[in-house]
Amino acid sequence: MFQKEVAVQTRGEGEVVDMTAEVAGAIMESGLVSGLANVFVGGSTAAVTTIEYEPGVLEDLARTLDLIAPREGEYAHDRAWGDGNGRSHVRAALVGPSLSVPFRNGRLLLGTWQQVVLLELDVRKNRSRTVVVTVTT
Amino acid sequence: MFQKEVAVQTRGEGEVVDMTAEVAGAIMESGLVSGLANVFVGGSTAAVTTIEYEPGVLEDLARTLDLIAPREGEYAHDRAWGDGNGRSHVRAALVGPSLSVPFRNGRLLLGTWQQVVLLELDVRKNRSRTVVVTVTT
Amino acid sequence: MFQKEVAVQTRGEGEVVDMTAEVAGAIMESGLVSGLANVFVGGSTAAVTTIEYEPGVLEDLARTLDLIAPREGEYAHDRAWGDGNGRSHVRAALVGPSLSVPFRNGRLLLGTWQQVVLLELDVRKNRSRTVVVTVTT
Repeated sequence: MFQKEVAVQTRGEGEVVDMTAEVAGAIMESGLVSGLANVFVGGSTAAVTTIEYEPGVLEDLARTLDLIAPREGEYAHDRAWGDGNGRSHVRAALVGPSLSVPFRNGRLLLGTWQQVVLLELDVRKNRSRTVVVTVTT
Repeated sequence: MFQKEVAVQTRGEGEVVDMTAEVAGAIMESGLVSGLANVFVGGSTAAVTTIEYEPGVLEDLARTLDLIAPREGEYAHDRAWGDGNGRSHVRAALVGPSLSVPFRNGRLLLGTWQQVVLLELDVRKNRSRTVVVTVTT
Repeated sequence: MFQKEVAVQTRGEGEVVDMTAEVAGAIMESGLVSGLANVFVGGSTAAVTTIEYEPGVLEDLARTLDLIAPREGEYAHDRAWGDGNGRSHVRAALVGPSLSVPFRNGRLLLGTWQQVVLLELDVRKNRSRTVVVTVTT
């Protein structure tokens, strides 16, 4: 087992960070040949998934997240706490904070157009996120 | 590897159960120091995710799930089987039944406001759910 | 650790493939008694989840996915690349490509009406998908 915490600075709501190289790097550091790489983001207003890291798809995902939990909606969380990030919490809970990707011969078994991404969903700018990569065999 | 089945009694649709203490307890029981804790719910009308366990956010999540698969909608599952839980199945498949959370020095690497939760999505009251926690290193 | 790549031929958009027997078979091949079976699909236009594999539920899920990212919508991905599968990318990113299911005494700890499924979300017909099953203890 090899575990690594990766610090990620995000700029603001809707930023999508390609984490694929960091995950591949953690596998290399682990020295393990085959197994699973788990990617987890701490915090309830960010999420992890895979996507084709292409501007069009990222724009389409942003629009869909705004349909599911609209920016203009009314949120009980915002009424209670005034954070203004009620939508961020809902979106993050639906997408989820965790993902496991298999690797073999040291190489992630992703599709050609498939990247591991961190979704910054919070409204606060310039956040420090911690992404934990756990490599097991 | 350490594996434990946790029985959870739920009261009805929309209940959200904070499982964080149970997951932390399983890690302690395992004696393992670092690794991953997987949380899985058996059954096709419940789900597992992380969220800030705060009444406002839980209300916002419930409203969003009702937007995605409305209580008032028409479901082919209900027409065929009369269960009345067509929406529960759809919501559960989208959120997913499984989650892996890393731990280090015996402590879950969750964010400060991030809890591991079971979502009871079925319409039947007083269900017995089995949540399986698997701790690996 | 045991890892197996399973080739799956899909026919077209919306097909749902029950992978439960393949996952159970990989556990048997592994010779492992208890642990986790991870299921991962390579590619950014397919997804993995659990569902009751029943025609009504599958129809309900398809309708919900079309509500979230409509077939008739406008997609920046399609404007840029002309693939016509912008909705497929968005749906796949939301459902996710990965799932871990616990097993004990060689048996998957799924609910009675809960199957592991691959969702083919791409618009292209007759695709070859690779599903990776990783069994760990």
